[in-house]
Amino acid sequence: MTHNTAIKLIQRPTGGPINADLFEIERTELPTVGPGEILIKQNHMSLDPAMFGWMSPDTNSYIPPVALGEVMRSSGIGEVIETNNPEFQVGDRVLGMMGWQQYFLSSGQGLNKIEAPLPDEAVLSIFSLPGLTATHGLFNVGKPIQGETIIVTGAAGSVGSIVGQLAKAEGLQVIGVVGKDEKADWIVNQLGFDAAINYNSGDLEAQLDKLAPQGFDLYFENTGGPIQSAIVERMNAHGRVIVCGLIADYDKQVPAPGPSWMSVLKRRLTIQGFTMPDHFHEAPALLEKLTPYVMAGKIKHRAHVLEGLESAIEGLNLFMKGENKGKLMVKL
Amino acid sequence: MTHNTAIKLIQRPTGGPINADLFEIERTELPTVGPGEILIKQNHMSLDPAMFGWMSPDTNSYIPPVALGEVMRSSGIGEVIETNNPEFQVGDRVLGMMGWQQYFLSSGQGLNKIEAPLPDEAVLSIFSLPGLTATHGLFNVGKPIQGETIIVTGAAGSVGSIVGQLAKAEGLQVIGVVGKDEKADWIVNQLGFDAAINYNSGDLEAQLDKLAPQGFDLYFENTGGPIQSAIVERMNAHGRVIVCGLIADYDKQVPAPGPSWMSVLKRRLTIQGFTMPDHFHEAPALLEKLTPYVMAGKIKHRAHVLEGLESAIEGLNLFMKGENKGKLMVKL
Repeated sequence: MTHNTAIKLIQRPTGGPINADLFEIERTELPTVGPGEILIKQNHMSLDPAMFGWMSPDTNSYIPPVALGEVMRSSGIGEVIETNNPEFQVGDRVLGMMGWQQYFLSSGQGLNKIEAPLPDEAVLSIFSLPGLTATHGLFNVGKPIQGETIIVTGAAGSVGSIVGQLAKAEGLQVIGVVGKDEKADWIVNQLGFDAAINYNSGDLEAQLDKLAPQGFDLYFENTGGPIQSAIVERMNAHGRVIVCGLIADYDKQVPAPGPSWMSVLKRRLTIQGFTMPDHFHEAPALLEKLTPYVMAGKIKHRAHVLEGLESAIEGLNLFMKGENKGKLMVKL
Repeated sequence: MTHNTAIKLIQRPTGGPINADLFEIERTELPTVGPGEILIKQNHMSLDPAMFGWMSPDTNSYIPPVALGEVMRSSGIGEVIETNNPEFQVGDRVLGMMGWQQYFLSSGQGLNKIEAPLPDEAVLSIFSLPGLTATHGLFNVGKPIQGETIIVTGAAGSVGSIVGQLAKAEGLQVIGVVGKDEKADWIVNQLGFDAAINYNSGDLEAQLDKLAPQGFDLYFENTGGPIQSAIVERMNAHGRVIVCGLIADYDKQVPAPGPSWMSVLKRRLTIQGFTMPDHFHEAPALLEKLTPYVMAGKIKHRAHVLEGLESAIEGLNLFMKGENKGKLMVKL
């Protein structure tokens, strides 16, 4: 008989790296598929920086935290292997919130069938959370205008890399901030960013001044960190800051202070935070916006694939160390 | 023969209190009124926190700084005493940017005639910059909804006191932050704020939690200072922060850091800075919005009137010490 293995959150992180003590690995018998239900074998499971928020106890956040004792939350792609639901056939390929486990029992609600002939890696890298997030954040929050200059932090990450390529396709000047020279090379030479800054290298203020003497009209924030204030001080009048992620702060108990509001006042900036659960209902429109860019070959991606369910735990630390190369996921 | 006395800016402030060394007092003969020109005797001259921005060298600000050697910029009310311009009669009462001087020679451009039977103090306190600023910031930036909770810093100041009264009239719960008990008493017992916090008193976090356990939907920022982060951490999802002034930072060479963007992200906040020169063309619509509240007796004011041109210099320090009681102005 086949078993299911699941990873449950049993303790909340309190700062510092994620370790195995926060989780419990549980092996159970496969559940019985009840009326209207389907059983899915998960093949690829997405790892996302949003998970740090889902594990944290903050009750005023955008989505309830994962309860202690529950299977850790994640999206993934799998195949229907048993069905009592007429809307799904055995063999259907589906995308949904399946959690850190090998098998997922579902009523079918919230699942999307994937019919496009794209590998799992491409679906999770572009047409799942990263692509929706990049498209909503850039277009609906940032409202870019051709000829403007945008700076994107976490520019080699799953969201940042798509934001930069979309902005480039829209005729913006695009500067990316990364933490490794290899990533700088990738976003400039493979993705077509105009320039990259490695935040670990030398005088950031001088680099920003040199690469963008015209200042920044848009700032797409995925990371936080000390470059934040240097960028805000170089924003132009009526600039927009899109706050999408703050990976540098997720492992801190007390997050670092932000930039002074003096530039916000003098330059009349708008700083706006967003998270995708507020906008999932807009997914069809977002995909409609994104797809033509992908079809035109303007959106490249790379997937960083870990092997085996348990690699998810250590995998989260790759985000904090900036060691993921592209969209992080786990192959089951 | 009558003379004009003017105060010119000759040096930029570099932090700390404003002192007389920054200015030069000049006595000249009254100018000759040329074709199309009018001469105005100024009666009341407005002092505004925006002056700290006008004196600073920042070139990316919303309005060019006052050039060194020029008469210090200010708005005021005066009476036409000589005219070669058919649009103005001797005796006309006018409002405009007249600067720190007793007499102002003008082409008439940018001047507004005041025909309402209101004393100078009321015009400068409500229908001039403070009222326009409060109306634009609250309604156009903040977009308040009946039943929401707003917190206003600098709540006894010229802008904050109007913001709070407008918000109250719109059916919001209104909390004001002030720096003196006398001001707390005034905004609650005279202006009708629901509650006040003196930022110099005890545990601000506990006070905020007690007065607004429901959190804040809107935050109208006039001051900056340490309470900023405590407020942002208590903002509700989709809250809006209206950044109108940062008086606590105007005398600092390096402004204090701002709140972490973690709450901006988790609560999906919008922080927006604005300054009125971007919106002067909207003045007619703003006055149309404001006037009914004033006519209905919902907007009280108090004027803090200094005597004599030279009192303007020391007057600026009253803002930084929070010692102005209501709208600051100079009677000439």
